[in-house]
Amino acid sequence: MSATSSAGPSSSTIAAIREKARRLSIYSMMSTTAAGSGHPTSCMSAAELAAGVFFYAMKFDPKNPNSPDGDRFVLSKGHAAPLLYSALAEAGVFPVSRVMTLRQFSSELEGHPTPRIPGVDAATGSLGQGLSVGAGLAIGARLDKSPTRVYVMMGDGEMAEGQVWEAAEFAGHYKLENLTVLADVNALGQSEPTMYRHDMEIYKRKFEAEGWAAEVIDGHDVAAVLAALDRAKVTTGRPQAIIARTIKGHGFSLVAGKENWHGKPFSKEQLVLALKEQGESLPVPIDPGKSYARTSLPEPPGFPAPAPPDYEAGKLVATREAYGYALKRLAAVNPHIVAISGDVKNSTFSEIFGDAYPERFFQGYIAEQNMVSAGVGLAARGKVPFVDSFACFLSRTFDQVRMAAISRSNINLCGSHCGVSIGEDGPSQMALEDIAMFRAVHASTVLYPSDAVSAERLTETMARRGGINYLRTSRPKTPILYKTDEKFPIPGFKILHQSGQDRATVIGAGVTLHEALKAAEQLKSQGTSIRVLDLYCVKPLDGKALAEQIGATGGRLVTVEDHWPEGGIGEAILAALAQAGTAPSRFRMLAVNGMPHSGKPDELVDAFGISARHIVEAVREIA
Amino acid sequence: MSATSSAGPSSSTIAAIREKARRLSIYSMMSTTAAGSGHPTSCMSAAELAAGVFFYAMKFDPKNPNSPDGDRFVLSKGHAAPLLYSALAEAGVFPVSRVMTLRQFSSELEGHPTPRIPGVDAATGSLGQGLSVGAGLAIGARLDKSPTRVYVMMGDGEMAEGQVWEAAEFAGHYKLENLTVLADVNALGQSEPTMYRHDMEIYKRKFEAEGWAAEVIDGHDVAAVLAALDRAKVTTGRPQAIIARTIKGHGFSLVAGKENWHGKPFSKEQLVLALKEQGESLPVPIDPGKSYARTSLPEPPGFPAPAPPDYEAGKLVATREAYGYALKRLAAVNPHIVAISGDVKNSTFSEIFGDAYPERFFQGYIAEQNMVSAGVGLAARGKVPFVDSFACFLSRTFDQVRMAAISRSNINLCGSHCGVSIGEDGPSQMALEDIAMFRAVHASTVLYPSDAVSAERLTETMARRGGINYLRTSRPKTPILYKTDEKFPIPGFKILHQSGQDRATVIGAGVTLHEALKAAEQLKSQGTSIRVLDLYCVKPLDGKALAEQIGATGGRLVTVEDHWPEGGIGEAILAALAQAGTAPSRFRMLAVNGMPHSGKPDELVDAFGISARHIVEAVREIA
Repeated sequence: MSATSSAGPSSSTIAAIREKARRLSIYSMMSTTAAGSGHPTSCMSAAELAAGVFFYAMKFDPKNPNSPDGDRFVLSKGHAAPLLYSALAEAGVFPVSRVMTLRQFSSELEGHPTPRIPGVDAATGSLGQGLSVGAGLAIGARLDKSPTRVYVMMGDGEMAEGQVWEAAEFAGHYKLENLTVLADVNALGQSEPTMYRHDMEIYKRKFEAEGWAAEVIDGHDVAAVLAALDRAKVTTGRPQAIIARTIKGHGFSLVAGKENWHGKPFSKEQLVLALKEQGESLPVPIDPGKSYARTSLPEPPGFPAPAPPDYEAGKLVATREAYGYALKRLAAVNPHIVAISGDVKNSTFSEIFGDAYPERFFQGYIAEQNMVSAGVGLAARGKVPFVDSFACFLSRTFDQVRMAAISRSNINLCGSHCGVSIGEDGPSQMALEDIAMFRAVHASTVLYPSDAVSAERLTETMARRGGINYLRTSRPKTPILYKTDEKFPIPGFKILHQSGQDRATVIGAGVTLHEALKAAEQLKSQGTSIRVLDLYCVKPLDGKALAEQIGATGGRLVTVEDHWPEGGIGEAILAALAQAGTAPSRFRMLAVNGMPHSGKPDELVDAFGISARHIVEAVREIA
Repeated sequence: MSATSSAGPSSSTIAAIREKARRLSIYSMMSTTAAGSGHPTSCMSAAELAAGVFFYAMKFDPKNPNSPDGDRFVLSKGHAAPLLYSALAEAGVFPVSRVMTLRQFSSELEGHPTPRIPGVDAATGSLGQGLSVGAGLAIGARLDKSPTRVYVMMGDGEMAEGQVWEAAEFAGHYKLENLTVLADVNALGQSEPTMYRHDMEIYKRKFEAEGWAAEVIDGHDVAAVLAALDRAKVTTGRPQAIIARTIKGHGFSLVAGKENWHGKPFSKEQLVLALKEQGESLPVPIDPGKSYARTSLPEPPGFPAPAPPDYEAGKLVATREAYGYALKRLAAVNPHIVAISGDVKNSTFSEIFGDAYPERFFQGYIAEQNMVSAGVGLAARGKVPFVDSFACFLSRTFDQVRMAAISRSNINLCGSHCGVSIGEDGPSQMALEDIAMFRAVHASTVLYPSDAVSAERLTETMARRGGINYLRTSRPKTPILYKTDEKFPIPGFKILHQSGQDRATVIGAGVTLHEALKAAEQLKSQGTSIRVLDLYCVKPLDGKALAEQIGATGGRLVTVEDHWPEGGIGEAILAALAQAGTAPSRFRMLAVNGMPHSGKPDELVDAFGISARHIVEAVREIA
């Protein structure tokens, strides 16, 4: 697949690539017309760029298109999916006739790329994320001392997204010389011309300001495309941006450079005209037959047991700190573990890992979106990424986490400083919606440890478990609750306080579990027994097992959480019970009950309705 | 408060501002030591900048510090709150002794600024959002033909956030000459040096690439600060960036320019040393007395009734389109309404408004985070902003929406293209978590119309209602259900199908409501009656009213939603019922039950478990 030569591409090579581009453009038009929807004009602007990358610059094996040994291609402008599918088909990954099943219910060739499709590493379609994914792939390749190059194709519309510039900063800072951007500047967005239209120099200055090598070319001049791809390969110490001036709908005069053609397929009659302009006549037949969907997606690599947690009973340790120790212990037995932190490693404690394994720790600076998507890129290369920030700032990455789930990625996120229990810093630093957010991610796992032992064990669980895993850690130091060899199965909870005469079940996690334990002691001294559950795993839940415990206490239930009421532990429990065909007989949901402000942790936990005092009152009301 | 002179500042002016800076620095140190937490060194780097803005450049009335007639100041680096509070105190907004109550439970002077504090327009503390807020304030001022200038102070650490560059693009594109950035480049982040340390030219190039006037100064040279502020005022046609080289902890040799001093107050002993270095001795006494918290926050302005919706019964109209008509109708009677769209105005239909009122419509391009925070700025100026994108891409703005709630802002968001019912574009374009997200915003309102009449009426409700309002609109055309004069109170729902023998209640909204109505007809033809509720208002909910309906159908309930199960309609209903002291006797929650892919809307609605067929089955199981 590679034809690089120091003398530059020959005229026959240029002609061959030009022909490839013509075919990619034609297949993109045909497949979108067949589908009755899609974005042909967005494909046509980038046909020469795609042909140059796929059939000139890239080394990759069409029989094993996801191999990390090959070069990688990320289509950040995911709506140009038919262009990518056409290139994969032309390269031999699947037949061209399969491309004509685009967007059908039964086809793996979805409207936007996902890793179900061979050759795709990450889902794209939420714009502005692909460069971060590419940066993750590139920095992972460097870590592996692999010669892999990563090509990212972006549109100019999506270059308005701030995340693109977070990624550009990151790639520039880490001098990712194995990363090349192809910017398809066709000057037309969905609803009107882009901000900078064809002012190519602005893009060049922006990339150069970030430490990139950047050049402007005519994106329809195949010789220029190939020469630029050649130059990119020999640039050292800098990522490269090839900024291509293009025409949206290039190759079909009816639409070329015209507004109001975004996301619109051509009618059959228009397609005939377009093909005629390309000297073609017949559309390719649709092949509804065999699926080429990938049958297996990457799983996190296995690894031997790490050294166990090491804490004395009763010692006070913050769960956020235990997370750092766990990462370090895991890293000793799993060489694939890497971490990225958003300039808070000394608060989330990933610095414990970073200090021990500096080559596997990446400073993400204060740019959370890039971190998450770079994590998806790292995971696609077989790394086991742990991404951390204050939990409240992970709310900034909801779209990236959502796309990670669509990517079937295996990434781990840790959010520290949850809830009002952080104290004086005030509400901007308090995560009160992170459980709701991470629960509403498909097939996610949401973990919420209440002591250092469970925090360490659950961090290990994350490294072994596929999918999107979230660990919610707390700022305050809390007592050790468990022996260091305790197991924490998923789903699961622990019974920390019980008797034969329990009048109610109280379910908490994190600081509220400790409040529940205090409440249990107070109630006991007044002659009332309660059952206290540590809900270390918030998702998935075992509704039947929960129903059994609650049933044993007369169906009386109090949930208590350092989170908003919506989408949190209380609602999760109600839903799990309902799905198990039951409901509490009497119920109180304690959650943060007003907009918090600064204060001491204890003051706030009490003022906003989730302290031992409120638990005692709630139990009294229902028991 | 203004001393600008064409001849430049006099030496006595410079000396006076230098003395102000010294005081702001001292009060910042004192107040954080008194609090036992906070970020003194982050204040000290910016003391001269803050003094220059507050006591030389800005026109504002300390007796009316939130007046839109005055110049505005946004502290984007919110952790330097003590510096802001000190400046407000020194300006006479409240006594200096009040600053010493910093971060106390009973003080309005929170760890990070919120609009509870006089002079503050928007909460900051999640970094990288202030420039967008400032851009919103500035573009709003321009719309009002006000001479107001807006000053935004940023830290260098936060300039890694992509949103900063979204805002810089936006301000450059709209040529916001009334917007000035003061960049406090102290080269030290929280956990280590910033990406670019003191490489000032990188920041200059980045701002210049976005069309800004930019200059680099020594941020501790008061004469240079004042001269730059003078130049900024006379720059035409461009926003201005004053990029100041500063030293973190400037003014106290123990800490100046040293790492590991982020977010750490000085001990009492260290404070004595610091004061000695400043020629001072006694700390200011703490004044725990009177609160200076703002007693009222802005409400959306009232307006006369707009022209009613205009649809024939039975006509097919998408709710997203009705949103556009509603905005236009509202704009005719409410001059404060403005809209920003993320390059999707032709999909969300805000173009109907934008075409009619182009001066009140802002193209936000593909940069969603900036749009939301700019909306907060516009709202702070008394505008009624409507911000729109595909609902899935609003997930990118969760942090900005969260901060808008902490800002007690009045902003309206519309997310179109919810759920699998969008069809062929595939999961990257489907919002399946937006209800969970917007429910988990403090005091938010979540609206989900099922026909064009309710969509229009609910859009009007948003314009009248304070707080964070979210409208979820759908892509498919759906039949008109209501008369054009129908009222839609908040909270509330509509009973669309009922009889005396209903065997179950089915609750849906959007496409699933129409599926429920189909199911009701099918079941009726088979002899089973059901009650069908249109849950046009998902938050808040009236649990008692819902319980009454469900109770009338034997407690048997089916919820059905084009959303993930977590945090959606089903959980919301269960929680509302539980809070009302009840629960369904038998229950089925229908929600999107797997990762969707491309296909026709009807295929997907059926394949992912939320079509009439599934509703019929669920009713059969429980009724």
